[in-house]
Amino acid sequence: MLAANYVGDRTMVVEEREAPGLRPGEVRIAVAYVGICGTDLHVFHGDMDNRVSRPATIGHEMSGTIAELGPDVEGWSVGDPVTVMPLVWDGTCPACRAGHEHICQHLDFVGIDSPGALQQYWNVPASTLVRLPSGVSLRDAALVEPVAVAVHDVRRSELGPGDKAVVIGAGPIGVLIATVAAAFGAEVVISELDPGRRAKAAELGLSTLDPAAVDQAAWVEEWTGGAGADVVFEVSGSASAVRTATDLVKVRGTLVVVAIHSQPRPLDLHRVFWRELRILGARVYERQDFVRAAELVADGTIPADGLVTGVVPLAEVQSAFGVLEAGQAMKLLVALA
Amino acid sequence: MLAANYVGDRTMVVEEREAPGLRPGEVRIAVAYVGICGTDLHVFHGDMDNRVSRPATIGHEMSGTIAELGPDVEGWSVGDPVTVMPLVWDGTCPACRAGHEHICQHLDFVGIDSPGALQQYWNVPASTLVRLPSGVSLRDAALVEPVAVAVHDVRRSELGPGDKAVVIGAGPIGVLIATVAAAFGAEVVISELDPGRRAKAAELGLSTLDPAAVDQAAWVEEWTGGAGADVVFEVSGSASAVRTATDLVKVRGTLVVVAIHSQPRPLDLHRVFWRELRILGARVYERQDFVRAAELVADGTIPADGLVTGVVPLAEVQSAFGVLEAGQAMKLLVALA
Repeated sequence: MLAANYVGDRTMVVEEREAPGLRPGEVRIAVAYVGICGTDLHVFHGDMDNRVSRPATIGHEMSGTIAELGPDVEGWSVGDPVTVMPLVWDGTCPACRAGHEHICQHLDFVGIDSPGALQQYWNVPASTLVRLPSGVSLRDAALVEPVAVAVHDVRRSELGPGDKAVVIGAGPIGVLIATVAAAFGAEVVISELDPGRRAKAAELGLSTLDPAAVDQAAWVEEWTGGAGADVVFEVSGSASAVRTATDLVKVRGTLVVVAIHSQPRPLDLHRVFWRELRILGARVYERQDFVRAAELVADGTIPADGLVTGVVPLAEVQSAFGVLEAGQAMKLLVALA
Repeated sequence: MLAANYVGDRTMVVEEREAPGLRPGEVRIAVAYVGICGTDLHVFHGDMDNRVSRPATIGHEMSGTIAELGPDVEGWSVGDPVTVMPLVWDGTCPACRAGHEHICQHLDFVGIDSPGALQQYWNVPASTLVRLPSGVSLRDAALVEPVAVAVHDVRRSELGPGDKAVVIGAGPIGVLIATVAAAFGAEVVISELDPGRRAKAAELGLSTLDPAAVDQAAWVEEWTGGAGADVVFEVSGSASAVRTATDLVKVRGTLVVVAIHSQPRPLDLHRVFWRELRILGARVYERQDFVRAAELVADGTIPADGLVTGVVPLAEVQSAFGVLEAGQAMKLLVALA
C-alpha cells in the first residue's frame, strides 16, 4: 500500500509500504479522504520536529470504510463508513480520572504522536471509530474532525440561542466555529484582516468585519446595544487580537481561546477583573462533539461544497501542502482510494 | 462634625464640616470604625486623581449605628448596628439588566466616586445598608467589607470542599481569601515573597509557600498528586505571578483574577488552551457575599484580633496612611467615635 510520510525539511514522500498486522481491538480502515489542517502544516514546517518521529505518516481529518476487523472487535462490520476521533488516552492520569480524557496528561494524538491517516490502509483502535450517518458522502465526512473542533469550542462557550458572538480569524476553524455558532442559534460576525479569507467567509454566508477598517470595540458596542458580545472566539493566534479581544466582551461574557499561541501574550487583566470576564481554553473534542459534527455535516448545515476547495490524489500531497502554505485554499482533501 | 478629606499630594486633612441633610431614602450613620484598604492607598498616592474629585472624603470599609432616618426609609431603626455595601448602580445598563448590578457599567463606588465613611456622620442610601448579626463588635464589623470581597472571590471560583487552592499574595485580601476558602472546606496554601507577610499569614494559621525558595509548579504538582490546583487566586498584582500562575492549575481548573493589574500582562495562553483552563475576573461583591461575610466575622471564622493590627483616632489618619504605605500593618482601623 501507499503512505505519505513527512521526512523533515518541508518534504512529504509517498512510499510503498507493507500494511502492518492488526492487534486485538484494532480495525483496518480503507482510507478515502484526508484533510490537511493547520497542525499538519506546522509539522510540515518542522515546528513540531521535537514531537514527531520521522518518517511520520501524519493526517487525522479523514473518512473511510472498515476493511478488516482485528481480534476482539465487536459492534463493527467490514464496509461500515467511519471517521476517527484521533485521541488515545491513558485513562489513569488525574485529568482522565476527572472525566476529561480528551485532555489526558499523556494524550496520544493519533496522526502526530502515532501514525496517521495519510495511507491507503490505517490501523486504529476500534474505540476511536465514529460511525457516519447514512447519506453523508465520504468526501464531506472528511470534514467531521474540524467540525468537531468547532462544536467543542461552541459547546464550551455555553453560547445560547439569540446570543451575539464574534469570531476572530476566518481560517477553516474560524469559519466552522461561526457556522456552528449560527447553527446553535447565535448571531455571529467573523473578523478577519485578510481580504481573501474575508471574501470567502462572506461567500459562505457569514457576516464579516475588517478590523483594519472598523473600530471593532465601537462596532460591537453598537451591535449589542452597549453591552458587548456574549462570546468572543480567539482563533487568529495573533497578539494584537488578544490585546483587543477583551474589549469586545460583555460583563460576565466569555472569551474562548481556540488558537495556539506559541508565546505568552499581553492580556488586559484589568478588563478581565473589571467586567468579571471568563476566559476558557478549548482543545480538541469529546465524543459527543464528533457525533454532533457528523450530524451537522450529514444534514448540510456545514457548507461542505464551499469549504472543500480541492481534492488531490495522494501523489500530489507535496504540492497540496505548498498550496495551503500559500494560503490559497480553505480546505484541501487528499484522495487515497 | 469632623471629616477626613484627601486633598491631593499624599495628604489627608481632618476638617470640621456641616453634616448635610438627609434626602428621601437615606439614613445617617454614626460611623464607628473605618478600615483603610489598598484602594484608599491608591487614592492617597494620587493614582486615582482623574477619578476622585478633591477634597474627597474617602473610606468604604466601615461599621456604625443608625443615627437618623431620612424620609421614606422603612425597615430600619435608630441605633441599629450596620455596615454598608458601598455600591450604587443605575439599574438600567446592560449589566444591571442582566442581573449583574455589582458590575453596573456606570457604578458609583461609594467612598471613591461619591463621599465615603471617613466622617463622623455619613449619609447613605438605605439600600446599601447591611444589618450586623447580634454579638459582633463594631470594631470587628469594620472587616465585613474586605471579607465580602473574599467571599465573592471564593464563590466565583466555585471551589468546593476538599479542593486544593493556591492564593498568590498574602496582603489583607489574600489572607482573607485563604481564610474564607478554608472555611468553605478547601485545603489552602498561600504564596508570598515578603517574609514579614508570610510570617503574619503563618501566625494566622495559614500554610505558606515562599516562591523564591520553592519551585511552585513542582510543589503544587506533588501536593496534588500530579493534577495541579483546583483553583488559583491571583491577588499579588505582579507580572511574574501571572506568568507562573497558569502552571499551577489542573486540567479544567480555575484561575481567579482578583488583583488590579494596571497594564496588560503576558499570559501563557498555550497553557490555557492545552489544559482547558478557566480564568475568571472577580470584582467587589453581591449582597449575599456581604451577608455571608458578616456571619463569618460574627462567628469568629475571621481572626479579627490577628488581622486588626491597630486602631487610630481620626486625628491620626495621615500617619495611618504612612504606616500602611510602609507595609507595616495588615489592617488599620480609624476610630470615628
